[in-house]
Amino acid sequence: MIFQDASIEEIEQLMKASKEAFKLYRKTPGKKKAVFLRAIAEEIEALGDTLLNLAKSETNLPIPRLVSERGRTLFQLRMFADLLEEGSWVDARLDYADLSRQPLPKPDLRKMLIPVGTVVVFGASNFPFAYSTAGGDTASALAAGCPVIVKGHPAHGGTSEMVAQAVLKAVEKTGMPDGVFAHVHGKNFEVGKALVLHPITKAVGFTGSFIGGKALFDLANQRQEPIPVFAEMGSVNPVILMPEKMKSEAGNIAKTYAASITVGVGQFCTNPGLIIGIENEDLLKFEEVLKEEIEKIAPEQMLNAGIYQNFEGKRTVVLAQEHVEVLAETLIERSAAIQGLPTIAKVKAEVFLNNPTLHQEVFGPFSLMVICKDLEQMQEVLSHLEGQLTATLMAIEAELQENPEISDTLRNICGRLIFNGVPTGVEVGFPMQHGGPFPASTDSRFGAVGPDAIKRFVRPASYQGFPENLLPDELKTDNPLNILRLVQGVWKK
Amino acid sequence: MIFQDASIEEIEQLMKASKEAFKLYRKTPGKKKAVFLRAIAEEIEALGDTLLNLAKSETNLPIPRLVSERGRTLFQLRMFADLLEEGSWVDARLDYADLSRQPLPKPDLRKMLIPVGTVVVFGASNFPFAYSTAGGDTASALAAGCPVIVKGHPAHGGTSEMVAQAVLKAVEKTGMPDGVFAHVHGKNFEVGKALVLHPITKAVGFTGSFIGGKALFDLANQRQEPIPVFAEMGSVNPVILMPEKMKSEAGNIAKTYAASITVGVGQFCTNPGLIIGIENEDLLKFEEVLKEEIEKIAPEQMLNAGIYQNFEGKRTVVLAQEHVEVLAETLIERSAAIQGLPTIAKVKAEVFLNNPTLHQEVFGPFSLMVICKDLEQMQEVLSHLEGQLTATLMAIEAELQENPEISDTLRNICGRLIFNGVPTGVEVGFPMQHGGPFPASTDSRFGAVGPDAIKRFVRPASYQGFPENLLPDELKTDNPLNILRLVQGVWKK
Repeated sequence: MIFQDASIEEIEQLMKASKEAFKLYRKTPGKKKAVFLRAIAEEIEALGDTLLNLAKSETNLPIPRLVSERGRTLFQLRMFADLLEEGSWVDARLDYADLSRQPLPKPDLRKMLIPVGTVVVFGASNFPFAYSTAGGDTASALAAGCPVIVKGHPAHGGTSEMVAQAVLKAVEKTGMPDGVFAHVHGKNFEVGKALVLHPITKAVGFTGSFIGGKALFDLANQRQEPIPVFAEMGSVNPVILMPEKMKSEAGNIAKTYAASITVGVGQFCTNPGLIIGIENEDLLKFEEVLKEEIEKIAPEQMLNAGIYQNFEGKRTVVLAQEHVEVLAETLIERSAAIQGLPTIAKVKAEVFLNNPTLHQEVFGPFSLMVICKDLEQMQEVLSHLEGQLTATLMAIEAELQENPEISDTLRNICGRLIFNGVPTGVEVGFPMQHGGPFPASTDSRFGAVGPDAIKRFVRPASYQGFPENLLPDELKTDNPLNILRLVQGVWKK
Repeated sequence: MIFQDASIEEIEQLMKASKEAFKLYRKTPGKKKAVFLRAIAEEIEALGDTLLNLAKSETNLPIPRLVSERGRTLFQLRMFADLLEEGSWVDARLDYADLSRQPLPKPDLRKMLIPVGTVVVFGASNFPFAYSTAGGDTASALAAGCPVIVKGHPAHGGTSEMVAQAVLKAVEKTGMPDGVFAHVHGKNFEVGKALVLHPITKAVGFTGSFIGGKALFDLANQRQEPIPVFAEMGSVNPVILMPEKMKSEAGNIAKTYAASITVGVGQFCTNPGLIIGIENEDLLKFEEVLKEEIEKIAPEQMLNAGIYQNFEGKRTVVLAQEHVEVLAETLIERSAAIQGLPTIAKVKAEVFLNNPTLHQEVFGPFSLMVICKDLEQMQEVLSHLEGQLTATLMAIEAELQENPEISDTLRNICGRLIFNGVPTGVEVGFPMQHGGPFPASTDSRFGAVGPDAIKRFVRPASYQGFPENLLPDELKTDNPLNILRLVQGVWKK
């Protein structure tokens, strides 16, 4: 499907409408915003197979995966509705006046989180539902009380358009202000640039490549009024194979990882792209089983030609580096165009340490094994890694207790640290941190998954000496919303 | 006192030491960090009058003000110690595994806040204790678990040096790792630049001018790894005189504001620099009383020659603008050098709206009155204001209820909204938001005052599938620290 890029005039109009909408929407009670979010979920559900089939045709993702991703999207919308209905997320803090305090009377002071204003969301290529038009960024911004303008990802413009229409229906049905949500197309970078540079924009959500995210981040910081860009830009998600664990489980771990590296044709930002082990018999066993498994995995179609070409290009570059070997490649031939070949490469630690090209993400069904001589060299490799979304320890407890620097180093460079698991599969919930130190994301103090993602689009605001009638309900003394608040230093409902 | 600027080699050495210190300090239990913070307070107290007299000689601040600022500094250090001892600030969130969940088992996932690494703090000229060497930025960063390198403000290098020695004594006495705190001098911008650009630095705290803060912010964003700069850059803190309130209280409000504008020679970032009223008899009464009061207030010495020259320069520029009148100036002559003259200027709203020079802060005992024809024009003025630390409404309840757009507009541009009070006097506590939309600060999602200031220097980190023994105490199932946590969606101890 071909859509026209939004013009500068259209963007200007949508921005002005969002600014007007914000005046009403920021005062809309949480329970009403929850009704809106639930209505969006219903409208998307009502699109049924039409939406799924369109998304399949635009992304090559199989229907079961799309069904599950749609499920996650609906879940996220309802999760934020739950959060709003419960209400405590505004982090209210109250200290009452004490006029008798010496040397100065203490004022009445109350604080809560309030929305920042219009948020621009960039749809992601690899999550046409869950991180696109009505995905996590949009849901969290709308929940916060911010109007949203989505730039649909050009690779699935039809899907994005259809979901946008569902959101607009929900806006109408639930009586939300005009302009609270808008959707534009933009193949050209100028559209995204105009959205980020517009003075009405107050924050940006992005999931995608480092180059794309960093470009938006730089634009946003060059504005007269700089604004935050929450770009989740992926990482290589190192997996550390500790020797004691490998003694008994090398084969099983290899099987588990063959699946994790190739699930969804490796098109997840949490794909394990780096496997770090210590040279010995057990690692050879691991390599052998991994090779067997990878050779049996059929190549599958990637999201689109651009993603495929990028995968092939980066894979080729890595394999062409000096002293890099191919450990395994699928033996099954391509049955259609743009299928990514599952591939494992292998390199010695000293080579890895001296070649920055090998540290880069190859987005697709690819992983690089880094072979270390011993724990000391492994520690050296870890201390040279950049910021990561995740890091995984395959280990027994005792060897981590004996070598605390291993997990300490990883803890310091990643958002989520996994023990004996796989990084693929991102649980949506309060304790999830999806976001890590730069370059995994632009701001490691926030995450893009789970209810806490709402914190990206709010700021604390204090009221001093306000009479009850002029305070928002969240801050009234008798706590009419019955939310958890820090009152005079004590948490209570 | 003259101190040598730190050399690039010294900075390199201190940075490396801070990196090593971080490996130990980030694992130091909260209760031990609390002992350290309390020891810093004790060491500062032990400096007694020697410190106060030195600070007086370097800043011209009177002893009672310095006593009170020292009190605030000690209070802040102990407040963070309390926060660490209580422990719940890490915002722990736990969801237990559910292996029977369909279609996929649910992993065990736990999250808490962890420190980001070395923090560089720039001492402030106007708070030699509370926002300098061992002030709020340093205390919150050390509480978070981050090593700190302070660049002392050159205007009070001796005071800064003396406080730094006290902190280093506390480091030694409480057995904290070498390198957890360092102090450098730097008159030259190159020192600050080298500190911000150093790859080991992970965040920056700054309180001062817009030009200084913005320069550091830009440097930090041009790094290969961009880092956050929390710069609190001041504002004009608009005060809105609503007509009904003015009917009965014009005179009293004028008296209150004459004091607020001139307290501390106006050298507070919350100084009311803009007073917006509606042209009528009551406003004339306000002007008359304000004039009488200001004329009686003696000029006092400003912090240093640079601050004085800056005040004089900006005051002169504003007074030289077309259609700007002087409403009041002190009648008392200067008794010493660098004394700032209390001054009130006055301008019509239409002139103010069309002259950006009049929107700028004049740091010192100065305020500009903006005279509006009616509420509509007042609303127009408000909608053209930039981001502010504070905004103040002098009003009766009914007139705010009848004109909700007035407080809505102010709420959207400021950090702290005050009802019938003065913005000077920043209460230190949980409900305080000291920080506002740009250009008041570089990141309105955080504040520099109160326990929540710790959030600037931490990031959320998840543990997935970890065994009890390898989890930090904050995340262990049996909650050995007895902190408030969100467990399976329910807040509990």
